[in-house]
Amino acid sequence: MSTSIAHGHLADIDRIAQVGQDRKRGGYSRHLWQAADLELREWFIQRAGDLNLDVETDRNGNIWAWWGPPGEGAVVTGSHLDSVPGGGAFDGPLGVISALEAVGRLQQAGVHPTKPFAILVFAEEEGSRFGVACLGSGLMTGKLDPARVLALSDADGITFADAAKHAGFSTSALGYDKEALSRIGVFIELHVEQGRGLIELGSPTALASSILAHGRWTLTFKGQGNHAGATLMADRDDPMVAAARAVLEIRDAALSFKGARATVGKISANPGGANVIASSVTMTLDARADSDESTRALVDDIVKRVGAKSVTEDSWSPEVRFDSDIATKLRKAIGEVPMLPSGAGHDAGVLADVAPTGMIFVRNPTGVSHAPEEFAELADCVAGIDALESVLRGLL
Amino acid sequence: MSTSIAHGHLADIDRIAQVGQDRKRGGYSRHLWQAADLELREWFIQRAGDLNLDVETDRNGNIWAWWGPPGEGAVVTGSHLDSVPGGGAFDGPLGVISALEAVGRLQQAGVHPTKPFAILVFAEEEGSRFGVACLGSGLMTGKLDPARVLALSDADGITFADAAKHAGFSTSALGYDKEALSRIGVFIELHVEQGRGLIELGSPTALASSILAHGRWTLTFKGQGNHAGATLMADRDDPMVAAARAVLEIRDAALSFKGARATVGKISANPGGANVIASSVTMTLDARADSDESTRALVDDIVKRVGAKSVTEDSWSPEVRFDSDIATKLRKAIGEVPMLPSGAGHDAGVLADVAPTGMIFVRNPTGVSHAPEEFAELADCVAGIDALESVLRGLL
Repeated sequence: MSTSIAHGHLADIDRIAQVGQDRKRGGYSRHLWQAADLELREWFIQRAGDLNLDVETDRNGNIWAWWGPPGEGAVVTGSHLDSVPGGGAFDGPLGVISALEAVGRLQQAGVHPTKPFAILVFAEEEGSRFGVACLGSGLMTGKLDPARVLALSDADGITFADAAKHAGFSTSALGYDKEALSRIGVFIELHVEQGRGLIELGSPTALASSILAHGRWTLTFKGQGNHAGATLMADRDDPMVAAARAVLEIRDAALSFKGARATVGKISANPGGANVIASSVTMTLDARADSDESTRALVDDIVKRVGAKSVTEDSWSPEVRFDSDIATKLRKAIGEVPMLPSGAGHDAGVLADVAPTGMIFVRNPTGVSHAPEEFAELADCVAGIDALESVLRGLL
Repeated sequence: MSTSIAHGHLADIDRIAQVGQDRKRGGYSRHLWQAADLELREWFIQRAGDLNLDVETDRNGNIWAWWGPPGEGAVVTGSHLDSVPGGGAFDGPLGVISALEAVGRLQQAGVHPTKPFAILVFAEEEGSRFGVACLGSGLMTGKLDPARVLALSDADGITFADAAKHAGFSTSALGYDKEALSRIGVFIELHVEQGRGLIELGSPTALASSILAHGRWTLTFKGQGNHAGATLMADRDDPMVAAARAVLEIRDAALSFKGARATVGKISANPGGANVIASSVTMTLDARADSDESTRALVDDIVKRVGAKSVTEDSWSPEVRFDSDIATKLRKAIGEVPMLPSGAGHDAGVLADVAPTGMIFVRNPTGVSHAPEEFAELADCVAGIDALESVLRGLL
């Protein structure tokens, strides 16, 4: 059995440090069914095998590693291995690695679980390849329609269905998985913090109190494509100008709603020639706020401000309030740690209304996430593993 | 010998109508060394063969079709076959097709040229694949450094050198082509008009008086990549916001310089995730004005306004004033036609300071170019061919 902590590093983070490096963007690009994702899945299966866990992949591409026989009402912990484009090393893998490490420690301590136990790795949490986040948990819980997911396509026009087939994964039973859900008695996800909350609190760990309501929209601005040299400024109907105004309006709208966040992270001009006035510009909108109502109001305000020719909702995740009984149990196991709302979405949030669910956050000293600067000090990672181990010990 | 005019259409436009259709953008995407470009080159070679012209490709990928023996001081006419992404059917091909048609008519009329004569098809006039316009004419005239061109790369990271090799074109003698230049005694380019000049003048054709000074720049805005949900609005350094402000400043700057045009036709966010605040945003700037000085002043003003972290000049084309003696000869052949300044760049502009050069514009009833709406009525195309035939008759 290998240990995750060696030479002052979290050794598993080092072991997968070469997988999916993005030379163009920096950081990591690890997306569902692509080479890096497949390599990380293989790595996890091997690591779980080292701990004598029994591995199975469910009908939605999520990987379960069972310590002892599978069964209903299990204690389940885990996270995801995929990343955003050019993402950091910790978002996702830290939760999986901490789960492996905690199990290793419990085994070394001679613990025998009295309940079924599994580590769970969710497929495509970030939604970076097919545009919809929490695919694995959303499909499992029936929140995502399998027919819609099969038809989603990536930037190269490859559908989810074709990508899965190419990776040798059968999608014939994609969707709501009652049996898998019945096995989740409680779900705990450890995750690197993605903001500055723990820096400000001066604490290495926290529990999640809630997840902001959030969603993704696609906004399209239409104009008249034309020649960049021959078309007088006065004769133009340039959608790039409308799109630029929209980016500023989106920021202003978010600033006018307390605690809200709104982001344009992707933009493209069609046809996209240097000497061509675009005929249309498409951008994504990621909008979040502390309740469903305020998020809807924010997006309504944005739509009113920007005058986009078309607005489509790509995903919607209502506000999540994590189970207070579980939080009490977690605090009993860990001691008094702060409670933090999460601006980021997580598979734990998707599971929260089908099973008692909790989250442990580990401090990120840069406060930066979804970027190569994302980080966690070894001592804080160890504090996270300590907390997870204590929690699992109390639940098993 | 085939004729270009049949059934009320310009038949050659119809013959190549299937080549390089862009299903995603609409219109045509015909870029150097890609399948559509290679197919159009084959088509041209065959069409030239039908007219018993002798075809050769020069060291820069430009195709010459000689009527009679090649030689110095030739009468040369032509244009280009490549397009912008999602471009129209006429920009480029109309000049090539009109040249073929004029030669066919002259042959049918029993004309025997007393001087060397060639139709010339320039490589990659639009610069849509490798970012630099007028590659074929720029290389031939020594205005573009072959080492720089070889290293240019397309959106997929393929270099000009590799793309040429893949297409079976040797780049060993790329660059200044003294022999080819010595053969150009006079160059006439017929081109669809790309603005509304001829609509307003009520004329089917015009001669070019000048081409605006113009160039392309790449602007990069840097910020701090971060999580779209976990990062408070107040904590952000989002380069998308700076880029959006820049788009509006660029428009304002162009509006403040009489006759100037400035366009952002391409934009991309890095890393480009819906749930990721970008770490950088890159955009192109196409800027044009009626003199070198005013264009430089416009770009200086833009740079001052936008605060881009980096500005690189990708290309620069000084103002062109076409040869007045040639214009006089053209008017003598055609009759009194209006003179129009061109907001668009052309290979004729690149050649204008190495050989006597003129341009004939054909009315575009939509006033739209670099877009699928670009058009020319058959009667106006015929007027253009009539004009070109008369001009060639006078010069041969």
